[in-house]
Amino acid sequence: MKNQEALLQLFIDILEKEAKPDDAGIPLGISNRHIHLSQNEIDKLFGKGHQLTKIKDLSQPGQYACKETVTICGPRGVIEKVRVLGPARPATQVEVMTGDCFKLGISVPVRQSGEISDTPGITIIGATGSVEIDRGVIVAQRHIHMSPEDAHAYKVRDGERVMIKLASERGGIFDNVVIRVSSKFRLECHLDVEEANAMGLNSKSKVYIIKNNQEEM
Amino acid sequence: MKNQEALLQLFIDILEKEAKPDDAGIPLGISNRHIHLSQNEIDKLFGKGHQLTKIKDLSQPGQYACKETVTICGPRGVIEKVRVLGPARPATQVEVMTGDCFKLGISVPVRQSGEISDTPGITIIGATGSVEIDRGVIVAQRHIHMSPEDAHAYKVRDGERVMIKLASERGGIFDNVVIRVSSKFRLECHLDVEEANAMGLNSKSKVYIIKNNQEEM
Repeated sequence: MKNQEALLQLFIDILEKEAKPDDAGIPLGISNRHIHLSQNEIDKLFGKGHQLTKIKDLSQPGQYACKETVTICGPRGVIEKVRVLGPARPATQVEVMTGDCFKLGISVPVRQSGEISDTPGITIIGATGSVEIDRGVIVAQRHIHMSPEDAHAYKVRDGERVMIKLASERGGIFDNVVIRVSSKFRLECHLDVEEANAMGLNSKSKVYIIKNNQEEM
Repeated sequence: MKNQEALLQLFIDILEKEAKPDDAGIPLGISNRHIHLSQNEIDKLFGKGHQLTKIKDLSQPGQYACKETVTICGPRGVIEKVRVLGPARPATQVEVMTGDCFKLGISVPVRQSGEISDTPGITIIGATGSVEIDRGVIVAQRHIHMSPEDAHAYKVRDGERVMIKLASERGGIFDNVVIRVSSKFRLECHLDVEEANAMGLNSKSKVYIIKNNQEEM
């Protein structure tokens, strides 16, 4: 086995060097469960014409955490204090952990943000009322936000899936990390709390693209 | 990149074939938070001379889930209904998820079972009393139980760390998986709930050793 392992390591090293513009790594953002609301739902949950109250900017430009929280209710249980993220979106979307699904009693697919067809609904309780959505609950697909310039530097394309290496006591590799490219995005890898905990990561951790499946560009 | 990736895949395939006696994979056991108690603690929590009540055998021979549960209390919060696993052990040990540490308000190291020096303590509440242990809370190091015969077949040694491949929609590789060999063990990989969720695994999933760091045997 020994020679083969040395060769494997060599190839991993080569791939890392090729795929990585520098040694700084990609910043990590760890997402807890949260909800994006449409203005229609905001009206029902917090009062007609209510405007979300920003308490903290998030790393992606224009996105922010709000003072508002909601309770989400499934057939088996509820989860309180689910943070609302702003601004309002065209469609309401609830992003939960896999572990939350057991507590709520619903089966939730892993999806990219915005891909809510054939996803379960849930009951949402706000400060002034409640609403039952018929779809919109997802477990977030891990992904990396980046600008077109970053995508060029990393030699990746929007929608491509890459592998990322996580260096820690609980380290390893996550596969199926979706690249999302937009001039509005800042370079950042998004994992959920369970993914970060499983790899022993915190908000100061960096991730490294080690392989991509693209054709030569 | 293309040729290098093809070569990398080739080497992974070779290593998989070498390290894997057959294609069936290693069964997965997913551990939720739980506690092992010494008879001294059982006496304090459930009454002098109390005997644990088995409700279900676990996959490792002689180990079982008990009817008894406890509440564990940290400086920031409590977690109820923590399952007691039997039989009684020489030292009490609490195994929690990384996510539990935030709720409890304690910092917990990743450790192998039994390695509880320099670990935090916690307050435990049972049916008839409570006890404060000064150490014994760990996050379980991921590991694979196997018999000496399995170890021979997989070409691994007790205490060795290997990588495992997880094939799923959220797949990837976990590094630093400790091999634990005993004639009392049945072949099974143990991950905690957060690790399983991060990789989209369930109790029917299989794991595959893809690399080991040993010298030639």
